[in-house]
Amino acid sequence: MSDSPIPILSTWVEVPKNSDFSIYNLPFGVFKNKKLSSRIGIAIGDKIVDLSVLDQEGFFANMFLPEGIFIKDSLNELIALGKVQTKKIRERVQSLLLADNGELRDHSARGKVMVTRKEAEMLLPVKIGDYTDFYSSIEHATNVGKMFRDPENALLPNWRHLPVGYHGRASSIVVSGTPIHRPKGQFKDPDMDVPAFGPSKRLDFELELAFITGKQTKLGDSISTEEAEEYIFGFVLFNDWSARDIQAWEYVPLGPFLGKSFGSSISAWVVTIEALEPFKLAGPVQEPEVLPYLKSEKKHSFDINLEVLIQPEGKKPSRICTSNFRHMYWNVAQQLAHHTSNGCNINVGDMMASGTISGPTADSFGSMLELSWKGTQPVKLEDGEERRFIEDGDTVIMKGFAEKDGIRVGFGEVTGQILPVK
Amino acid sequence: MSDSPIPILSTWVEVPKNSDFSIYNLPFGVFKNKKLSSRIGIAIGDKIVDLSVLDQEGFFANMFLPEGIFIKDSLNELIALGKVQTKKIRERVQSLLLADNGELRDHSARGKVMVTRKEAEMLLPVKIGDYTDFYSSIEHATNVGKMFRDPENALLPNWRHLPVGYHGRASSIVVSGTPIHRPKGQFKDPDMDVPAFGPSKRLDFELELAFITGKQTKLGDSISTEEAEEYIFGFVLFNDWSARDIQAWEYVPLGPFLGKSFGSSISAWVVTIEALEPFKLAGPVQEPEVLPYLKSEKKHSFDINLEVLIQPEGKKPSRICTSNFRHMYWNVAQQLAHHTSNGCNINVGDMMASGTISGPTADSFGSMLELSWKGTQPVKLEDGEERRFIEDGDTVIMKGFAEKDGIRVGFGEVTGQILPVK
Repeated sequence: MSDSPIPILSTWVEVPKNSDFSIYNLPFGVFKNKKLSSRIGIAIGDKIVDLSVLDQEGFFANMFLPEGIFIKDSLNELIALGKVQTKKIRERVQSLLLADNGELRDHSARGKVMVTRKEAEMLLPVKIGDYTDFYSSIEHATNVGKMFRDPENALLPNWRHLPVGYHGRASSIVVSGTPIHRPKGQFKDPDMDVPAFGPSKRLDFELELAFITGKQTKLGDSISTEEAEEYIFGFVLFNDWSARDIQAWEYVPLGPFLGKSFGSSISAWVVTIEALEPFKLAGPVQEPEVLPYLKSEKKHSFDINLEVLIQPEGKKPSRICTSNFRHMYWNVAQQLAHHTSNGCNINVGDMMASGTISGPTADSFGSMLELSWKGTQPVKLEDGEERRFIEDGDTVIMKGFAEKDGIRVGFGEVTGQILPVK
Repeated sequence: MSDSPIPILSTWVEVPKNSDFSIYNLPFGVFKNKKLSSRIGIAIGDKIVDLSVLDQEGFFANMFLPEGIFIKDSLNELIALGKVQTKKIRERVQSLLLADNGELRDHSARGKVMVTRKEAEMLLPVKIGDYTDFYSSIEHATNVGKMFRDPENALLPNWRHLPVGYHGRASSIVVSGTPIHRPKGQFKDPDMDVPAFGPSKRLDFELELAFITGKQTKLGDSISTEEAEEYIFGFVLFNDWSARDIQAWEYVPLGPFLGKSFGSSISAWVVTIEALEPFKLAGPVQEPEVLPYLKSEKKHSFDINLEVLIQPEGKKPSRICTSNFRHMYWNVAQQLAHHTSNGCNINVGDMMASGTISGPTADSFGSMLELSWKGTQPVKLEDGEERRFIEDGDTVIMKGFAEKDGIRVGFGEVTGQILPVK
């Protein structure tokens, strides 16, 4: 973890203890409500700072921002201004929220600027260009290899040499809170002679984090591991819903397709990579040594606590998994360097997810597939419920936060309820 | 093939014999030149009908088109008007070009409307949302299975039950004529103990056609095979460049990734599905019978002649492959029905490619991998050249056209030159 102490900051905004949205975080999101059209805000405590009102009131004077840059239905144009500008905006907001700064605190527009978070409807924060999903947890890849291939040789030969990844479907990525219908699809269970078409019987989640790219490259160009973080705007929680029966039948030889593309859910607030800087640490030792284009001198892993809860309809949520982003074998700089090593171009608003974040212990596995070990060991919930996979009416809740020296920077949550097949 | 005779049409535009862009075709594209900003046109013979000028001159009066709908850098907004409108526009242009119609022929703006195709720079016709690549040729899948798996069981068990497909990279799809650098990547040839990183040594093309979706669906909704064609705006030629050595090492278990994402090339003119209607036919018999959601009463295959040429730098092009889109086992209606069977939503401007279009004979294989049988049988070119894979400086040219009763509807070509590694 980064050794420099975090300077202590206090704010005039009332921030509940254990809020993910501390003065140190200040994530970006897009929101609207009955009275307000889509606009960009920054979360603090239970409030949203409406950046469009701040802008109208002249708080960003002399920053030469394009007119109406905060009255948008996505962050893309704001992100495209570049890190120098978006960092300045975030720092300006941080300064305006400091306890000893009266500029906004004592301003007549304060009431209009500070929106109650509960009253806001959060929108998908970015228009996603291309979406890539990696497979970067060695524990997850090993678990899957043990279940479906060879317990003695669970990892495929390429796994330790490159961050395996694949292209996913961007159109079906939705914001937290959006319900998703159980998908139908083709499957052929081991006891079936011929495949059938119907509702998935093995619906699962995958606990992931995803980063959003903030800078484009040209076709033919590559990004080095050292440069990679300049291209990362921020992170969201990512639930990569998966229909295991559909996936198992379709995935050879070209990979997951309809077993994934019926929906993925992301958290609404984009936590900037700058806010996560204090929580960086070195990742696991990589053995064998990676090829030069995947090496880096710097730390690119993050200490982010993660958990998953299942809430059956009308019942209490039960925590079923506790994991940490630090477990990832391949880090974000390696993912981005590998992704562009062939000259593949990236755009502002691309999304790259980590793959399931499983830890080393059985209670840290990031999917039902692993937690119930292919459905053989039911997972106990409160109220006498148990689950092998996700049932209709269940809401899956993922949470994540980093904490150090009593300072907390978190993601809030990504939730999604599974509705019956349509 | 459709039995209804095509009505004979003649035009006042001079259309060279064997032009792909006959009065029956009238494909849409986006172009600009030194004098003109990006705009939408329709090709006929060696000319482009500048739709923005037609519009300015009032030729679309009473059609209630949005202002400036043709002054765009992509077709997306035009396509989003819906088939009723885009068909009307195309039919209006066809009517204006008929030999006995003097409206445009004798109009003072004719010179401004009719742009010389050679002087125009063609742009990528659509902003591509999500890109999917299918694997729908039984001959191609069988060839690949024979080479890399089991010659006796070349097709995987799922292949005849569903149109196998995977998500591809949309950002790196470029318009015909855009050169592409040979990609670098990680590979491990059979004689290597450990993988290495460097320029691909087995660079290939794949001969494909792709359709562009013209209508969106909501997450959770599915499209039936009978409805599918309402969602298809048109087709382009598609070269799915592939680095076989990178692909072979990376693709287990999640499918092709960097072996494909360094670039794909499409033809500039989008041929509407309406223009291809006369060339429809029934596809191959599907055995075993497909599941009900993949059945269709109607014909959804197309008789489209295809060819591939390689032109080494400074030399003549040599034809190396002659194929036909009619060979495809899975048709476009089945592809779209399958793709949305899980509720995956589509948007206007999504692109779905067929997969390599190989025919039954050795000269109809749609990739170097198959033509040179994994590099074991060099392909002879003119001038004493031969190729196992694509070399630096080579231009790959793909052409395609349908023809019936002397009437021709074609795609022009998609070309791309391979430049040395960057």
